[in-house]
Amino acid sequence: MTIETALEALAKQFGDRVQTGHSARVLHGGNESYFDEVLPDAVLAPRSTEEVSRIVRICAEHGCPIIPWGVGTSLEGHALALSGGISLDMGEMTKVIEINAEDMDVRVQPGCTREALNTELRATGLFFPVDPGANATLGGMAATRASGTTAVRYGTMRENVMALEVVLADGRIIRTGSRARKSSAGYDLTKLMIGSEGTLGIITELTLRLHGQPEAAASAICAFPDIESAVGAVQTTMQMGVPMARIEFLDAACIRAVNRADNRALPETPHLFMEFHGSEAAVAEQAESVREITAEFGGSAFDWSTDHAERARLWHARHNAYYSVKALRAGCQAVTTDVCVPISRLAEAVTETTADIEASPLLGPILGHVGDGNFHAALLIEPGNSGELAEAKRLAHQMAERALRLGGTVTGEHGVGVGKMKYMTQEHGDAWQVMATLKQALDPQNILNPGKVVAVN
Amino acid sequence: MTIETALEALAKQFGDRVQTGHSARVLHGGNESYFDEVLPDAVLAPRSTEEVSRIVRICAEHGCPIIPWGVGTSLEGHALALSGGISLDMGEMTKVIEINAEDMDVRVQPGCTREALNTELRATGLFFPVDPGANATLGGMAATRASGTTAVRYGTMRENVMALEVVLADGRIIRTGSRARKSSAGYDLTKLMIGSEGTLGIITELTLRLHGQPEAAASAICAFPDIESAVGAVQTTMQMGVPMARIEFLDAACIRAVNRADNRALPETPHLFMEFHGSEAAVAEQAESVREITAEFGGSAFDWSTDHAERARLWHARHNAYYSVKALRAGCQAVTTDVCVPISRLAEAVTETTADIEASPLLGPILGHVGDGNFHAALLIEPGNSGELAEAKRLAHQMAERALRLGGTVTGEHGVGVGKMKYMTQEHGDAWQVMATLKQALDPQNILNPGKVVAVN
Repeated sequence: MTIETALEALAKQFGDRVQTGHSARVLHGGNESYFDEVLPDAVLAPRSTEEVSRIVRICAEHGCPIIPWGVGTSLEGHALALSGGISLDMGEMTKVIEINAEDMDVRVQPGCTREALNTELRATGLFFPVDPGANATLGGMAATRASGTTAVRYGTMRENVMALEVVLADGRIIRTGSRARKSSAGYDLTKLMIGSEGTLGIITELTLRLHGQPEAAASAICAFPDIESAVGAVQTTMQMGVPMARIEFLDAACIRAVNRADNRALPETPHLFMEFHGSEAAVAEQAESVREITAEFGGSAFDWSTDHAERARLWHARHNAYYSVKALRAGCQAVTTDVCVPISRLAEAVTETTADIEASPLLGPILGHVGDGNFHAALLIEPGNSGELAEAKRLAHQMAERALRLGGTVTGEHGVGVGKMKYMTQEHGDAWQVMATLKQALDPQNILNPGKVVAVN
Repeated sequence: MTIETALEALAKQFGDRVQTGHSARVLHGGNESYFDEVLPDAVLAPRSTEEVSRIVRICAEHGCPIIPWGVGTSLEGHALALSGGISLDMGEMTKVIEINAEDMDVRVQPGCTREALNTELRATGLFFPVDPGANATLGGMAATRASGTTAVRYGTMRENVMALEVVLADGRIIRTGSRARKSSAGYDLTKLMIGSEGTLGIITELTLRLHGQPEAAASAICAFPDIESAVGAVQTTMQMGVPMARIEFLDAACIRAVNRADNRALPETPHLFMEFHGSEAAVAEQAESVREITAEFGGSAFDWSTDHAERARLWHARHNAYYSVKALRAGCQAVTTDVCVPISRLAEAVTETTADIEASPLLGPILGHVGDGNFHAALLIEPGNSGELAEAKRLAHQMAERALRLGGTVTGEHGVGVGKMKYMTQEHGDAWQVMATLKQALDPQNILNPGKVVAVN
């Protein structure tokens, strides 16, 4: 009844699909962040829900941990096999199962990425809006309650997952939710699974809400003299109810990085990158409203463009900002923070964070989905430099504490993983114990992604 | 260790605030629907979260059931004391605690009604949109995951509750969520509590998301030759992404009831009642789009009106439709059904339901929040007539089975309560057992509203 006996039992059923070679384990032992490599004992890629269920039953029998794996883009060490076990790679469950254009929903397997889904949807006039930047899998995005640039208009995974199929810790397969747009039929197991990071069940299918491609879309860039004015413009825009499709903040250091990486010549001051969706008239009206607001806050005059190439160029710059920022320091690693505060406290949060980072020897450009009050600093450190890592952690800690003091959360969209465990008591108080109670009820052996989200004995 | 000893212990602390007189018990033993009266053993109205916690601790010690009570407008017997115990009346916890206009959120006590909240908000330019018709308490609305006419635009309680304070079955007080607009920090306990009908915890405070009062609002009424055309127009409107604020279906029988009750002369055919919110230009554009769509489906020409009195008259008629419908048969009782299906199956669901009702001796006008695929029949029966009640239940049963067959849910917004328990296995399969597991984990003694939502030993 060990991991070893589990691997033997799995090998009997799945043969050499149970990969124990070093290279497969290394591919599933790393992370996009600063956490040390932790190798799973084996990697196994199920081909169906039924296979997931069989694998889980075997692992349950032997007490072997199971850690779901998408494409490895998570940022808080979610997929590290802290107690060993199987990395369950969803890379062979990538199908778009059924598009219901009339109902604007779609059923997908968890290994399907958001870009693959949107490619498949192109002819339907529909799209899946949630956009965390990385081309993550939809299963992984649900597991971390991902969001990103478009959440301000279209919501996060919380709002865009209608139903799930989930394999529980004992191998049972359940379906949560339905294709009805709303229901009051009992506990919301769908929402309980979203954001549970593989600790309560393994997502084997998702029903997602789709949205109509907007009749028109326009984008705009606006430069501000300082952080307060940029954030003030965001606050007012949100309060006026302008239905922004995207409203992204990039600080001066970010703009410097974008200029270098994309060969642009934007003024190196805080900026908002914006997008408007709607009818042509609605887009024009929204852009005009925002132009008035940004002018009040000292923003630069801006041209809005419905030109597809120009829009693509803008959002490429934004999506690529993480890599552009990393390019500011050759060979560096980024420690990415992720706090979210009530909009009224956003200027305070960003300004204080900037002051902290300016007083530090590290570079740490700030950017964020400010329409939701969510922002990140990418703290650039030399790999293996423990002094710099400690300094980055100190800055990240200050941000987290500040977010809690201002009534916010230590993670707006990246999730808890390993990195944010230490704040859970402070953020949730006794409610964190309640989460552990739920975990124990659904996974009494603690075999599903152990060591993440909750602390159990 | 009985209900009796619990009452003695409560009386020691709360004196004659523990009401055991017949009239108080009768006031908390009825329901708005067809369920038999079930009297609680006592009624107690806490004045603070701390008092709720003390009451729960005493009840837990004595194994005494606790059933939260708002204003008694629920429709599935949610607040009936099926195993006796205390009706916990939230009527002394009605405060609006804090309005955060800048962040567009508000903290309220659970006994505050939605109309009281909106009255308090009037000067802020903000409003709370969720509108189930009845002037329910916000705590009750969260507990049943209520929605109503505006959910198509603004979402249900699921989307509009940001955070909760909850007293658990052991008296612990927890806070779930925060005022940040999004978070990935652990399991979504807020969403788990919403729709749990008082079975997992007692809501003692809510943080709600507010919305800006629209710059302009317009309403319109459109008559259709038949059900299919009315529902077809709704489907197309939703697929086109017109951001309807309200889009309500009333069948010919409903319109007859409205004509009688409100002294109107609408053609007695299926209708849509609609509302548009936005800037003046946006409202005009939406109304124009919908006018084109409805014309395609044979709808009558319609005038849209931004006149406040005309709009108020229209929505009064809609809100009052339940009572207007009941007035079709003197002294009757209404058995109200509540199904929700994917939009593509809505015409089928409504048409088949209509045929069933037409073949029955009962009157049963149909109306609904069709933008979400949600509709109701109000089946009118003579109180005490067991034959008619059986016939109403038969029709309701057919609707529920049909909704499940079409991929929907047996309750779009009213909740499970007592009335929908029998469908939970069919709707959720093994997931219903998972709900019971969660209930047992959080309320091992089964003292919180026992007999509702889940079946536990």
